[in-house]
Amino acid sequence: MLPQKLFFVHNFNRFHLDIKLTCDAARSLASRALSAQGAEADVADCVASALVLADADGQPSHGLSRTPSYVEQMLAQKVDGKKLPCVTKKGASSIEIDANGGFAYPALELAVQQLTDLCDTQGGVSMAAISGSHHCGVAGHPVEKIARKQYLGLMFANTPKAMHAFGGSKSVFGTNPISFACPRKAADPIVIDLSLSVAARGKIVQAAKQGRAIPDSWGVDPQGQPSTDPDSVLQGSLNAIGGIKGMALAMMVEILAGALANSHFGFQASSFFDGEGGPPRVGQLMLSINPFEFNPDFIDSVEFLIQELAATSSNSFRVPGVRRFQARKQSIASGLTYPESLITQIESFAAA
Amino acid sequence: MLPQKLFFVHNFNRFHLDIKLTCDAARSLASRALSAQGAEADVADCVASALVLADADGQPSHGLSRTPSYVEQMLAQKVDGKKLPCVTKKGASSIEIDANGGFAYPALELAVQQLTDLCDTQGGVSMAAISGSHHCGVAGHPVEKIARKQYLGLMFANTPKAMHAFGGSKSVFGTNPISFACPRKAADPIVIDLSLSVAARGKIVQAAKQGRAIPDSWGVDPQGQPSTDPDSVLQGSLNAIGGIKGMALAMMVEILAGALANSHFGFQASSFFDGEGGPPRVGQLMLSINPFEFNPDFIDSVEFLIQELAATSSNSFRVPGVRRFQARKQSIASGLTYPESLITQIESFAAA
Repeated sequence: MLPQKLFFVHNFNRFHLDIKLTCDAARSLASRALSAQGAEADVADCVASALVLADADGQPSHGLSRTPSYVEQMLAQKVDGKKLPCVTKKGASSIEIDANGGFAYPALELAVQQLTDLCDTQGGVSMAAISGSHHCGVAGHPVEKIARKQYLGLMFANTPKAMHAFGGSKSVFGTNPISFACPRKAADPIVIDLSLSVAARGKIVQAAKQGRAIPDSWGVDPQGQPSTDPDSVLQGSLNAIGGIKGMALAMMVEILAGALANSHFGFQASSFFDGEGGPPRVGQLMLSINPFEFNPDFIDSVEFLIQELAATSSNSFRVPGVRRFQARKQSIASGLTYPESLITQIESFAAA
Repeated sequence: MLPQKLFFVHNFNRFHLDIKLTCDAARSLASRALSAQGAEADVADCVASALVLADADGQPSHGLSRTPSYVEQMLAQKVDGKKLPCVTKKGASSIEIDANGGFAYPALELAVQQLTDLCDTQGGVSMAAISGSHHCGVAGHPVEKIARKQYLGLMFANTPKAMHAFGGSKSVFGTNPISFACPRKAADPIVIDLSLSVAARGKIVQAAKQGRAIPDSWGVDPQGQPSTDPDSVLQGSLNAIGGIKGMALAMMVEILAGALANSHFGFQASSFFDGEGGPPRVGQLMLSINPFEFNPDFIDSVEFLIQELAATSSNSFRVPGVRRFQARKQSIASGLTYPESLITQIESFAAA
């Protein structure tokens, strides 16, 4: 069955045809493509849901555009689409999950479920360490799920090397996202989701394609010198936010998600984008905290903070995460727009 | 008994006399001063030890220079030197500590001790929320103590407002330090200790005194415009690292240390420097994690990371925290240097 094509959109600016799909159709297409290329049905569904949610949230760099590279990595045995995660150890307040060299999404789902169960019995705090993992996608998604169950979620994930460290010019650390989500009163959770690089690599790739200069604060060339040339920075390395402060935070994430979670460090991990090298084997560390154990008025306190921010910030103030929920609502109502070339490629995976 | 004055040092650059004290003498002097001004003996000892350790570590902005403002705050009843912290609630994996409007240091000590005890029984992770607290001093100190017991320590502390948020020009968030410490093999722990502002307020005060311009990335004037004038920025507000990313991290710290720990937010907290206003009532959230539960080879893994950093970074690479331990060793061997005016003032508190 072909996905439901709602209509074609001529996008004259970008000289390609756009295609519009409902979220369900996009999910179904991606799932069938991943299944046909060797993923277990459950894994394919889980991965497809995560990718489409990224697109729905207005974060296409973690969306269906990843499907071709995921398929390439399955074929190169960098990620095993047949492997489901398992709990390898369970302590009083913590669990250890082995992603088994499979996709990260099923392991993240398992962590979310186990963490909130543990929080119910442990009260205060619980932690999950995921080893042997892969691209975590939108880092805000797992913590959002925790926050929707009325807990705080906090995640640290390491990623393949992209940032230099402590005066060097060679990439050592990943951009190592930190994500945090907090329940609100009768509203979507606060979702904080940031990588530790000044700018996303995708932005630099885009500038290179358009022949635009970039601010010299974004990265360094292969000699370690600040550069406004996007191509030089892509061959060089990205800068961390706040200089040595962001580098130190990236090192903390490497220790938590790499060393503690018994996974590769950023400098050992292969790319999430191609079939080169062995499995990336990165790690994720996730915490769940029950704030109501400590402050029964927690929700009111959070609303008080938000009121103050709205009052003292500029008119453009939005609660972190609000933009993605607005985009999501719009996407569910109106569908998602993709380049036709991408959809054709994913359809060819599904038909194989 | 007067402190042991090792020798006088003429410091011609700064037009004042320096005085050198052993660490023990400095501790004893500060403790006697705080006691004489109304602190309990145990509290005075604990606070004095924390201040002197800051000086020993080369962080004088959290050292004995705070004594006069601490005394002022005791006299103004912003901090109660007679109050000891207590555990108000104990969950399976967490504890709640009330600093009782007293100094933060005894509460932080109690948290460190309880957390590592809890980690021994809970295995994976434990958490302490400290409410009704005060200036946490060097944020790396409590987590260092946790790391010396072979656990990972992680702390979030909120502080009085100093940084603007999300497009506003008014200060809302504190500089909200995050600290992290990790045990090493036969070496001092890795200690990461950073505030979320681009530059410390102390640096801007120093530039103002010397009539020097500051980089326009450090802060904004009262109209919210970037400024190179230190006085304007001191009247305005500090910038967070990484723009909106640092602001989001600061908001996370406000939620963890303020809302969760049932304490004031940065914008509600009175200054740590003077007797104005009521008690600051800030909060601290501290976590202890047993990494060996997840990875028996954790220590070797951390050493492997450090080797890679040393190999790929510049020659000036030092493990985070190393500088403070070198300074501490030197201070213990050779004593601490203070302006004579400060020592005279502290002596007058002790003699009262």
